[in-house]
Amino acid sequence: MKTPQLLNYERDQWVAGAGNLAEISSAIDGAPVAMTGSGGLDFGGMLRHAREVGGPALRKLTFHERARIIKALGLAIMARKEELYELNYLTGATRKDGWIDIEGGAGTLFSFSSKGRRELPDAHVLLDGQLEGLSKNGTFVGQHIYTSLQGAAVHINAFNFPVWGMLEKLAPTLLAGVPAIVKPASATSYLTEAAFKIMIDAGVLPPGAVQLIVGGVGDLFDHLTGQDIVSFTGSASTALKLRMHPNVTRDSVRFVAEQDSLNASLLGPDAAPGTPEFDLFIKEVATEMTVKAGQKCTAIRRAMAPAQYLDAVEQALSERLAKTKVGDPRAEDTRMGALVSVSQRNDVIQRIRELEAAGARIVAGDPNARPPIAGGAFLPPVLLRTDDPWGNDAVHDCEPFGPVSTIMPYRDMSDAISLANRGKGSLALSLFTHSPNAARDFVQGAAAFHGRMLVIDRTNAAESTGHGSPLPVLVHGGPGRAGGSEEMGGIRGVKHYMQRTAIQSSPAMIAAITEQYVPGAPKHFIGTHPFTLKMSELHIGDTWKTDARTVTIEDIEHFAEFTGDKFYAHMDEEAAKASPIFEGRVAHGYLILSFAAGLFVWPDPGPVLANTGLENLRFLTPIYPGDSLRVELTVRSKSIKSEETGQVRWAVEVFNQKDELVATYDLLTENVP
Amino acid sequence: MKTPQLLNYERDQWVAGAGNLAEISSAIDGAPVAMTGSGGLDFGGMLRHAREVGGPALRKLTFHERARIIKALGLAIMARKEELYELNYLTGATRKDGWIDIEGGAGTLFSFSSKGRRELPDAHVLLDGQLEGLSKNGTFVGQHIYTSLQGAAVHINAFNFPVWGMLEKLAPTLLAGVPAIVKPASATSYLTEAAFKIMIDAGVLPPGAVQLIVGGVGDLFDHLTGQDIVSFTGSASTALKLRMHPNVTRDSVRFVAEQDSLNASLLGPDAAPGTPEFDLFIKEVATEMTVKAGQKCTAIRRAMAPAQYLDAVEQALSERLAKTKVGDPRAEDTRMGALVSVSQRNDVIQRIRELEAAGARIVAGDPNARPPIAGGAFLPPVLLRTDDPWGNDAVHDCEPFGPVSTIMPYRDMSDAISLANRGKGSLALSLFTHSPNAARDFVQGAAAFHGRMLVIDRTNAAESTGHGSPLPVLVHGGPGRAGGSEEMGGIRGVKHYMQRTAIQSSPAMIAAITEQYVPGAPKHFIGTHPFTLKMSELHIGDTWKTDARTVTIEDIEHFAEFTGDKFYAHMDEEAAKASPIFEGRVAHGYLILSFAAGLFVWPDPGPVLANTGLENLRFLTPIYPGDSLRVELTVRSKSIKSEETGQVRWAVEVFNQKDELVATYDLLTENVP
Repeated sequence: MKTPQLLNYERDQWVAGAGNLAEISSAIDGAPVAMTGSGGLDFGGMLRHAREVGGPALRKLTFHERARIIKALGLAIMARKEELYELNYLTGATRKDGWIDIEGGAGTLFSFSSKGRRELPDAHVLLDGQLEGLSKNGTFVGQHIYTSLQGAAVHINAFNFPVWGMLEKLAPTLLAGVPAIVKPASATSYLTEAAFKIMIDAGVLPPGAVQLIVGGVGDLFDHLTGQDIVSFTGSASTALKLRMHPNVTRDSVRFVAEQDSLNASLLGPDAAPGTPEFDLFIKEVATEMTVKAGQKCTAIRRAMAPAQYLDAVEQALSERLAKTKVGDPRAEDTRMGALVSVSQRNDVIQRIRELEAAGARIVAGDPNARPPIAGGAFLPPVLLRTDDPWGNDAVHDCEPFGPVSTIMPYRDMSDAISLANRGKGSLALSLFTHSPNAARDFVQGAAAFHGRMLVIDRTNAAESTGHGSPLPVLVHGGPGRAGGSEEMGGIRGVKHYMQRTAIQSSPAMIAAITEQYVPGAPKHFIGTHPFTLKMSELHIGDTWKTDARTVTIEDIEHFAEFTGDKFYAHMDEEAAKASPIFEGRVAHGYLILSFAAGLFVWPDPGPVLANTGLENLRFLTPIYPGDSLRVELTVRSKSIKSEETGQVRWAVEVFNQKDELVATYDLLTENVP
Repeated sequence: MKTPQLLNYERDQWVAGAGNLAEISSAIDGAPVAMTGSGGLDFGGMLRHAREVGGPALRKLTFHERARIIKALGLAIMARKEELYELNYLTGATRKDGWIDIEGGAGTLFSFSSKGRRELPDAHVLLDGQLEGLSKNGTFVGQHIYTSLQGAAVHINAFNFPVWGMLEKLAPTLLAGVPAIVKPASATSYLTEAAFKIMIDAGVLPPGAVQLIVGGVGDLFDHLTGQDIVSFTGSASTALKLRMHPNVTRDSVRFVAEQDSLNASLLGPDAAPGTPEFDLFIKEVATEMTVKAGQKCTAIRRAMAPAQYLDAVEQALSERLAKTKVGDPRAEDTRMGALVSVSQRNDVIQRIRELEAAGARIVAGDPNARPPIAGGAFLPPVLLRTDDPWGNDAVHDCEPFGPVSTIMPYRDMSDAISLANRGKGSLALSLFTHSPNAARDFVQGAAAFHGRMLVIDRTNAAESTGHGSPLPVLVHGGPGRAGGSEEMGGIRGVKHYMQRTAIQSSPAMIAAITEQYVPGAPKHFIGTHPFTLKMSELHIGDTWKTDARTVTIEDIEHFAEFTGDKFYAHMDEEAAKASPIFEGRVAHGYLILSFAAGLFVWPDPGPVLANTGLENLRFLTPIYPGDSLRVELTVRSKSIKSEETGQVRWAVEVFNQKDELVATYDLLTENVP
């Protein structure tokens, strides 16, 4: 049978690469899996297509519309996941390893879709922070906004997560309204291509939104501009080369990098052998060494323990690792499959030799063990130990990207922090302790060097997602050697694909630009009560002005009796006067809110189903007996969640008889669209 | 008289540079002002001193303590500002120009101090976003935090704002708890040195917090690590050189750059001659050309007008510029002083020649005009015009850093957006229009290319802070050619000097690490009512548990009658049942809040002065007649504002008789410390 050739997806067409092709081999037995190449592609044309077709099409959609597309992509992947699991084995991964990649990838799409609909507006512009007053009379104000970058995102992925690696970058990119060009690592590009094809088959993406390069990127970088963004996962040396490209440096092209990371895990000073935290630590280190055969950028490379417990750690870990059955990833009893390729295995063995040369010694596992299947890229887990971590730079600098970890001792908390930070920046760090004080001291001392930190103990281990799992709602990335970047983190990750701009103008102009009401912008006073209007009939800026109601001393006393809130400022004229804030008895804040609602609520059933929340309430002017209240209720923004339900955000302004602002807040209602 | 030598501030000592010194000349007449050099400094030692002495000292302080230091620095500058104004003239700047630099610089310190105290906690760790649920039972949650970088900030400043340029970088750096090494541009370093000395004399900075290099940076960059940050303002070519330094690229050293920017200003399609917006545009372009003799990174280099109005623009601008009196900056009737140096003036003239060679023509101002003072770096404002902006790349790419601007026509809105974006990324853009639609279309189409955009019209011009003024509360920076970075922007700018880390653990551990109560963390139930305790007697996590109160149908009806809120869900059993949300009549949300307050309020005068606000209120479970309510009120965080006043943030949880959460919110109270 002829080895199949992978296809590129160039300007909405599947295209076979021309010229020399590379052969990709199975990790299990070295048999050919696919031929691949990208010769003949017009890389500059792909970038232009993304910018001129994909970008405008995506930017026409709102955040919510894009979020729904992302969900549909996830559903498409899940519906055809078994096709992907079949290919997954060829990468050396077990089904469990594949679950992280395939279903974890789809889950990332679902998470971003959900965050997008819950935390982003159903609009094109994202507001950042509050309005900033810039002038005395309020005619000139500032508002930060985020808009979609107008270039293309170039995603350069690593071999270890061919599906998840693509999707964790695609989800925030598409949600931001930016088209992407995906370039997988060759070794596992057949799996990426299969997942990419499922998404194209789903038929939900606008033209130009995504393209695929299953080979080298040719002269693509020569065509990058300051509106493009490169997101890279892989080795520090490749990152460095790409980051130094003249176009990237000259045009300040955004460059997101996840690169080498000598992640640490720490046994807390309190976690003596026999404690639950000791056992959890052993289990986690062993898991991180063997999942995906240790080929994870977040895997634990340095395991640190109090000096007096290091022998116990060595023994417990060695025993646990000895039970790891290495073999054909398709076999049910296999605990660890193969590395991605023989050359990758040889590279790992070379690194182990470097660690040994620097003074570490192997305490478990034999790098020369005979592979269970001839031609396969197998390697048993190898545990090293150094007793002089400050005298051995290699254990902090040399990363064997496979099932390899080094244990080392620390003296005290300060030494532990320094050793952890000696990694010069990492993606993930875990600490096993049941002591809140140890957790506080360690995290405060080390957080600046690490992108994600876990503190595990007996109370949370059962529900922990584990040291090595980046989560879509948390940032993934680390400072320094780890690349100095961030991905994911919920909406934080979306903003990397958008530009923040400070807008200065009048409130009226800011409202026009952001398509939201902002305080100070013109109100459109309407004669029909807005609670009787459907969301489609409500317009931004529509305002309902209520009658006024006088607040009497009897109201205040009555409210106090009724609710039980007899705070002296409401009940005792002398004590209220003596306070530094009030000139006499004042109405309860909750009385003001309650009367305000009484003034603006429409009693009959209608499109407003319920008041679900209230935000940013500030009481600005006290209400004294005899003062009156009136309300202006303005449509600030609206967001349709489904055919049955939506949310309206109202700006509520409560005034007194002198038109002074008494209270302001945002009111949230659940509405029928 | 011997020309004075400027001093470096190295490891808390004033040190004269050794070896060859450079002479700095007055912009007014070329007379020597100072000698300067940094020979003999131990640059690696300065970085170590910052990291080992300055950083730990600053990190010991809370955000509020650092904010108070920053205010004290601003007060010190203001008290001795006249010393700085005297030196300011020698840079060629008028007193008005100096106001932006000197008092604008102090104002930036005040702004950051104020933001720091209002928007940051009185703590060491800054929380980012809400707690993220990561598990079903809530034992494992996520929280993003910011902690101070543990390296040093290296500030490389431009010549044009020797005081402001230093302070706008120092304020967020110090607020973040990071020490700084300041390196001013030589041409005006005597003014920076004088302002720096005032800050040292103030005696409020911890040792190692700031250092000064009045000369080259030697091998400083060879000692940078991934915890350090470089903040650079200057030319793109210098930025590029520094950004490519092996340490910077290898260790992902953060590199903030404000570099070249061909900022545009646009006359709106509606702003015909005779409209207020036309006049405002002419005035703004002329102002931006002449303030600081046009030596501003935000100055308008490209002025765009509808083709049919371009002649009118040329005429009005030329007339206005002709009235600009150029001369000795010390003279009261001088409107524009000198450029910073003769070499700078020659460079600007060279750029004008390049623009002419590319097809632009001078329509006002003579680059060869005789300087009003011999030896001075004077140049009159020079206005160029091109009628073919798409055929003339130089007008978009070549920046004469002086009193020079080019006018050009645009055809329609789409052409205007493309022309504005042809600058490939800019710091500031202004649009003069009275049309909200034009503003919306333009800003939405162009925002991705610009860091700050102003929309000016007749309603806000009087209060506008102007095209060229970066404000401390707004981001300053731009994508692409402008450097791809951000500075200032209030607390946004502080975060550039901190590391964001995702923490995963139990709520109890997160509370310990962040020193704040978080939902799910252990509560410490106290027997004394917390409203009777001073802030110093309240501890994070202290919780007051109230009695329960049953809500009756009479309560609901009574509340409805009393407040006027007769929403059907409270009043009409059938209609309530028919809604998709409720199973029958429910209590008002405001009734729940009011009863909750009745349950937790302590009536007598005490340390709690008032309820000032409420945040993030969510109603989670409806209350039906017969249900009961009880409250747990927990100290979430506290922040002392002054000796007289502070704020406590309380987590309020309202439960029903089944211990289901009915409502949650944060309550803010003003307290006596």
